[in-house]
Amino acid sequence: MAKVAIVMGSTSDWPTMQQAALMLKECGVEFEAKVVSAHRTPNLLVEFAESAEAEGYSVIIAGAGGAAHLPGMIAAHTHLPVFGCPVKSKTLNGLDSLLSIVQMPKGVAVGTLAIGEAGAANAGLLAAQVVALHDEKVREAVQAFRKKQTETVLANGSLELDE
Amino acid sequence: MAKVAIVMGSTSDWPTMQQAALMLKECGVEFEAKVVSAHRTPNLLVEFAESAEAEGYSVIIAGAGGAAHLPGMIAAHTHLPVFGCPVKSKTLNGLDSLLSIVQMPKGVAVGTLAIGEAGAANAGLLAAQVVALHDEKVREAVQAFRKKQTETVLANGSLELDE
Amino acid sequence: MAKVAIVMGSTSDWPTMQQAALMLKECGVEFEAKVVSAHRTPNLLVEFAESAEAEGYSVIIAGAGGAAHLPGMIAAHTHLPVFGCPVKSKTLNGLDSLLSIVQMPKGVAVGTLAIGEAGAANAGLLAAQVVALHDEKVREAVQAFRKKQTETVLANGSLELDE
Amino acid sequence: MAKVAIVMGSTSDWPTMQQAALMLKECGVEFEAKVVSAHRTPNLLVEFAESAEAEGYSVIIAGAGGAAHLPGMIAAHTHLPVFGCPVKSKTLNGLDSLLSIVQMPKGVAVGTLAIGEAGAANAGLLAAQVVALHDEKVREAVQAFRKKQTETVLANGSLELDE
Amino acid sequence: MAKVAIVMGSTSDWPTMQQAALMLKECGVEFEAKVVSAHRTPNLLVEFAESAEAEGYSVIIAGAGGAAHLPGMIAAHTHLPVFGCPVKSKTLNGLDSLLSIVQMPKGVAVGTLAIGEAGAANAGLLAAQVVALHDEKVREAVQAFRKKQTETVLANGSLELDE
Amino acid sequence: MAKVAIVMGSTSDWPTMQQAALMLKECGVEFEAKVVSAHRTPNLLVEFAESAEAEGYSVIIAGAGGAAHLPGMIAAHTHLPVFGCPVKSKTLNGLDSLLSIVQMPKGVAVGTLAIGEAGAANAGLLAAQVVALHDEKVREAVQAFRKKQTETVLANGSLELDE
Amino acid sequence: MAKVAIVMGSTSDWPTMQQAALMLKECGVEFEAKVVSAHRTPNLLVEFAESAEAEGYSVIIAGAGGAAHLPGMIAAHTHLPVFGCPVKSKTLNGLDSLLSIVQMPKGVAVGTLAIGEAGAANAGLLAAQVVALHDEKVREAVQAFRKKQTETVLANGSLELDE
Amino acid sequence: MAKVAIVMGSTSDWPTMQQAALMLKECGVEFEAKVVSAHRTPNLLVEFAESAEAEGYSVIIAGAGGAAHLPGMIAAHTHLPVFGCPVKSKTLNGLDSLLSIVQMPKGVAVGTLAIGEAGAANAGLLAAQVVALHDEKVREAVQAFRKKQTETVLANGSLELDE
Repeated sequence: MAKVAIVMGSTSDWPTMQQAALMLKECGVEFEAKVVSAHRTPNLLVEFAESAEAEGYSVIIAGAGGAAHLPGMIAAHTHLPVFGCPVKSKTLNGLDSLLSIVQMPKGVAVGTLAIGEAGAANAGLLAAQVVALHDEKVREAVQAFRKKQTETVLANGSLELDE
Repeated sequence: MAKVAIVMGSTSDWPTMQQAALMLKECGVEFEAKVVSAHRTPNLLVEFAESAEAEGYSVIIAGAGGAAHLPGMIAAHTHLPVFGCPVKSKTLNGLDSLLSIVQMPKGVAVGTLAIGEAGAANAGLLAAQVVALHDEKVREAVQAFRKKQTETVLANGSLELDE
Repeated sequence: MAKVAIVMGSTSDWPTMQQAALMLKECGVEFEAKVVSAHRTPNLLVEFAESAEAEGYSVIIAGAGGAAHLPGMIAAHTHLPVFGCPVKSKTLNGLDSLLSIVQMPKGVAVGTLAIGEAGAANAGLLAAQVVALHDEKVREAVQAFRKKQTETVLANGSLELDE
Repeated sequence: MAKVAIVMGSTSDWPTMQQAALMLKECGVEFEAKVVSAHRTPNLLVEFAESAEAEGYSVIIAGAGGAAHLPGMIAAHTHLPVFGCPVKSKTLNGLDSLLSIVQMPKGVAVGTLAIGEAGAANAGLLAAQVVALHDEKVREAVQAFRKKQTETVLANGSLELDE
Repeated sequence: MAKVAIVMGSTSDWPTMQQAALMLKECGVEFEAKVVSAHRTPNLLVEFAESAEAEGYSVIIAGAGGAAHLPGMIAAHTHLPVFGCPVKSKTLNGLDSLLSIVQMPKGVAVGTLAIGEAGAANAGLLAAQVVALHDEKVREAVQAFRKKQTETVLANGSLELDE
Repeated sequence: MAKVAIVMGSTSDWPTMQQAALMLKECGVEFEAKVVSAHRTPNLLVEFAESAEAEGYSVIIAGAGGAAHLPGMIAAHTHLPVFGCPVKSKTLNGLDSLLSIVQMPKGVAVGTLAIGEAGAANAGLLAAQVVALHDEKVREAVQAFRKKQTETVLANGSLELDE
Repeated sequence: MAKVAIVMGSTSDWPTMQQAALMLKECGVEFEAKVVSAHRTPNLLVEFAESAEAEGYSVIIAGAGGAAHLPGMIAAHTHLPVFGCPVKSKTLNGLDSLLSIVQMPKGVAVGTLAIGEAGAANAGLLAAQVVALHDEKVREAVQAFRKKQTETVLANGSLELDE
Repeated sequence: MAKVAIVMGSTSDWPTMQQAALMLKECGVEFEAKVVSAHRTPNLLVEFAESAEAEGYSVIIAGAGGAAHLPGMIAAHTHLPVFGCPVKSKTLNGLDSLLSIVQMPKGVAVGTLAIGEAGAANAGLLAAQVVALHDEKVREAVQAFRKKQTETVLANGSLELDE
C-alpha cells in the first residue's frame, strides 16, 4: 500500500507540518513523519532520499523555513514526487521560504504549497490525490473530505453586524 | 494509459507552457494541450475540470499569469492532482502570478512550480514522476532524463577567463 | 430599488467585510451578505454570479484572502460591476490577496479597494456612489456621510505633546 | 446620456490610458480624455473634480504613475465613482503606482484596476458596466464584447510544439 | 522668526508625528501642529498650503500613512520645502506610505524621511537644520543635540552576555 | 551667496545626478559637483563633509546606488541639510538604494527623493527651495519654473486614439 | 592569538548580536564587543576600523538595522574580513537592513549573514571557521559544535499529533 | 599555499562568477573553478565539499541563482568558510537567489555577497582578505588593489553637463 513521508528541518516545524499528517489521516493514507535537516544532517538527507523509494514511499512531503533547502535537495536525490511546504519564518514571514522552495531550476521539480499551515494541509491533500489515482479507498476518502468541506461552507451560520 | 492535460489561459502562454509538453514527450507521457481561460471562458473551465477524470486524464498542468486563477479554479472542480505554472507577467515579473497560484486556502491544493519556462518544464517532469509511480516505462524515461542531465553537467567544458 | 450583494470566501472574512455592510447601511443602500467560496463551493459561485442580475443586484462586493479568486471569478460570470476587497492574510499581510484580486487580465474587470477594513468600508461607499447615480436619497446620504466625515476631521481636538 | 471622463497626469500616460478610451468606444459610451496633473496643475484638479458632476460625467477614470495621487485626490473632490489605473513606472514597475492608488483610507474610495494597459482597458469596461445599469444599449454592447471575447478564446488555433 | 508647520492626515498619526515636534522643541524651533487630511479635508489642504508662506512658515513637515497623498499635495500648492513622513500602516508596514510619498514626479519635490517615529524625529531635525542656516541659536541647538547624542553612545554601558 | 554641493559615489551616477545640476542651474543656484565614494574614498568623504560648511555650502545633495551609504555618512559628518538620491541599481531597480538611504536611524537625517532622474531633479529643486527662503532671486526662479511647468501641462496637445 | 571584534550600532542591537558572542565563546575564540555607531559616532568608526588590525583583531563582525551602514563603512576603512549582521528592524522586518548591508559595490566586501539572531550566531561561527584555518584548537571546537548539533537533530524526540 | 575553490551551479553562471576569479588573480591567490550543481549533481556536491579541506582549499566561493541551494549545501558538508554569490535570476532579478543563500538557519553559515557581478568580485576579494591574514604577499596585493581603486576614484575626470 502507498505510504507518504513527511520530513521537516526541525521539530519546531512540526506544529505546521502536522497539518499534512492530519490531512493524510483524514484521507486514509499511511504516513511517517521525521526530522531531516538539510543543513545539520546532510548525510541523513542523502540516505533518506536515496532509499525512500525502496522503503516503500510513493510521495515525499518536505517542509522547511528560511533558506529552505530541504525539499529541493530531497528532490535532487530521488525520482519520487516531492511536495514542498514553506514554513513561516520569523523575519520575512515565509517569503524567503517560499522562494527558496519554489524557484527550482529546470530538471529537478518540487510542487510547492502555500506558506504555513494551510499549505501543509494541502500538501497532505495533494499527496492523497496522487495516491488516489490508484487506490479506490483513498479516492473515496478524498471525495468525502471535499464534499464535507463544501457542505460546511454551505451550512455556515448567519452573518450578523456587530453594532 | 495515463494522460496529462496542459491547459493555459491564453495562446500567449504557450511559449512558456510548451516546456511542459516537451518534458512530457521526453518522458514518454501522453498529453493534450488546450486553452481554457478562467476569466474569459469560465463555463469551459467548469466543463473541462469536471469531466477531466472521465476523459482519462491523471494529472492536470495549468499555467496562467497575473491574477492567475486558472490552476486554483480547476483544482476546485476536480479531485485530480493539479500542478500550477506561474507565467511571467509584464508588470510584476510573475510575482503576482506566483502568489495567486500558490497561496491557496486549506482544502483545495495546487502544487506550484517556478515562474516561467523552468517551472513549466518541471510541471511536466513532476507529472511524469506521478505517472511513473504506476508505469514502468515512464519511470525508466524519467530516470534516463535525470541521468542524462547529470552527465551533461559533469561533462561541461572548461571555464575560461575572458581577459 | 438597487441592492448590493456582499460575498466572501469564509465566515472568517466577516469581521473585515462587515465594514462594507455598515457603510451601505449608513448610505441607505439595501444589501445582502453571504458566504460563497470560490474554491470550496465553486458551483454555488457560478450559480450566484449568473443569477445575480436577475436577483435584482446592481453591484457585487467580493472579499477574499490569499489566492483570492472570488472577486475575479464572480466577474467572469456576470456583467454587473464587481468590487474586490483583499482581506489581510496571515502570512503575507494581504499583499497576496491584493495582487490576486487587482491584476486581472484585459476583458474581465474588478475594481479593487485597499487591503483590510478600510478597503471593505470603501467598497461599500463606492457601491453606494454607483447606486447614487440614479437614486437621489442615496446621493444625499453619501453627501451627508462625506460632509460629516470632513467636519469630524475639522473638529479634531488638540494635539498635545506627551512629555 | 452618461459620459465618462478619462484623466491622466501626463501625456506620457496616454499610450496606456487610451486603452480605456478604446474600450468605452467599443461599448458605445461617450467619453472625454484630458491631462490633469495632481502635482503640476493642482488647481485644475480641484476645478475639474468639483465640476465633474455638473459637467454631466457619471464616472471618472484616472491614471497615474509613481506617487500616483491623481485618482485619490479626484475622489476627494467629487461624489462620483472614481476608477484608478496604475501606470507602469520606470523604476518600480508600477508597484509604487498601485500602492499609491489602492491603499486609500476609509471614507474616500478608488476602485483600482491592474497595472498598465490591461488595467486601463478594464477601467473602461468597469465604467461601461456601471453605465449599463441604466442604459440598455450599453448593456448590450458590454454583453456583445464579452461574448465575442469568449468566442475568440474558444476559436483559438492549435498549439504546436516548436521543435 | 522661522516657524515650522507639522501637519498630518489624522489624529491617529500624532503618536508618530509628535516626535517631529519634540525634536523641533529640542532645537529651539517654533512650530505648530494640525490635522489636515488630503482626502477628507481637501479644501483645507489647499487653503493651508497656499497660505503657509504668508502665515510665516519656513518649512512644512507632513506625515501620512497608506496612500499617503498629504506631503505631495501640499508640495503641489506651495514653494516652501516640504518634508514627508511615512507613517507605519496596518497592512503593509509603511512600505505603501513610503512609496506614495517618495516617488514624486519631476517638478514637485518632497524630502522623505524613514518610516515611523525615527523618520518623524528626523523630519524635525532636518527642518531645524534648514532653519539653522540663518539662525545662530538654532544652529547651536542642533550642534548641541548632535554632540549630546554622540556622547550618549560613547558612554554606553557594558555589553553583558545573558547566560 | 548660497552654494549647493552635488556628490555621488561614481562617475556612472552622473547621468542621473546631472538632473540635480540642471535644476539648480534653472533656479539660478550656484553648485559644484564631485565624485566622493563612501566605500572607495572614505577619508575624502570625512574631509569633504566636515569642511562643507566652511567651504560655503548650504545644502548637500548626495546620490548613490545599491548599498547607498554616501548620503547617510555625509549627514553623519555635517550639520548642513542633506538630500539623498537613490540611483537606480542594476539588480533591484533602486529599491535597495532607496531603503539604504531613507531608513536612517533617529538623530541623523537625510531627506530622500525618488529613485532615478526624477528624484535627482527634485533634489535640485528642493535645495533651491531651501536657498529661496533667504534669496529673493532664487525664489522668483523657483516660482517661474513651477509656473512654466504648470503652463506646459495646461497647454498639452490633443490626445488622439491610435486606431 | 586571533581575536574577533563584535561591533553594533546601538545597545539595542545587543540581544541579537550577543548570539555572535555566544558562538565565538562556544568555539573558543577570544572576542570583544562594543558599540560603534556609523551615524552617531562616525569618527569613532574611522578610528576603530583603521586601528583594528594593529589592535590584533583578525575578523570584524558588525551588526546594524535599518539603513545599516556600519558593516560597509568599517569594511571601507580596513583590510580585515568583515561579516555583517542585519538586525531585524521595526518597520520593514530587516529587509532594509539586509539590502543596506549586502548590496555593496565592487571593491569593498561584506560577507552578510541572515537577518536576526540566527545570522548573528552564524557570523560568530563563520569568524570561528576563518580563525580555525590557522588554529587547531578552534578547528576542533568548530567540529565539536557541528557534530553536537547534528547529534541533537538525530536524537530529536517523537513527533506526536495534537488531536 | 592557500587555494580558493570557485563553484557554480551551471556554466551559465560563469560570466558572473569569473569576476571572483579575476579578483583572486588580481590579489595573487591561487584558485580553481568548476561546475557543481546542487540539484543535478548532488553526489558530486557531497564529494566535493567533504574533500575540499583535504584537497587543500582554504575558502569556498559558491554562486547560484533562483532556489540557490549550492552555497548552503556546501557549507553543510564542510568546516571551511563558504562565501555565497546570488546570481541574477531571469524572473525575480536575484531576490530569490539572495534570500535562498543568505537566510541560513543557525549553525551552518554562508557569508553572502551582493547579487550579480559586483558580489562575485567581492567574494573573491573577501576570500583574499581571509587568505591575507596569514599570507604577507596576498596582504600586500589586497592593499595595492584597494589603494589603486581609491586613486582611480580620486582621479576621476570632470563631470560635464549634457546640454
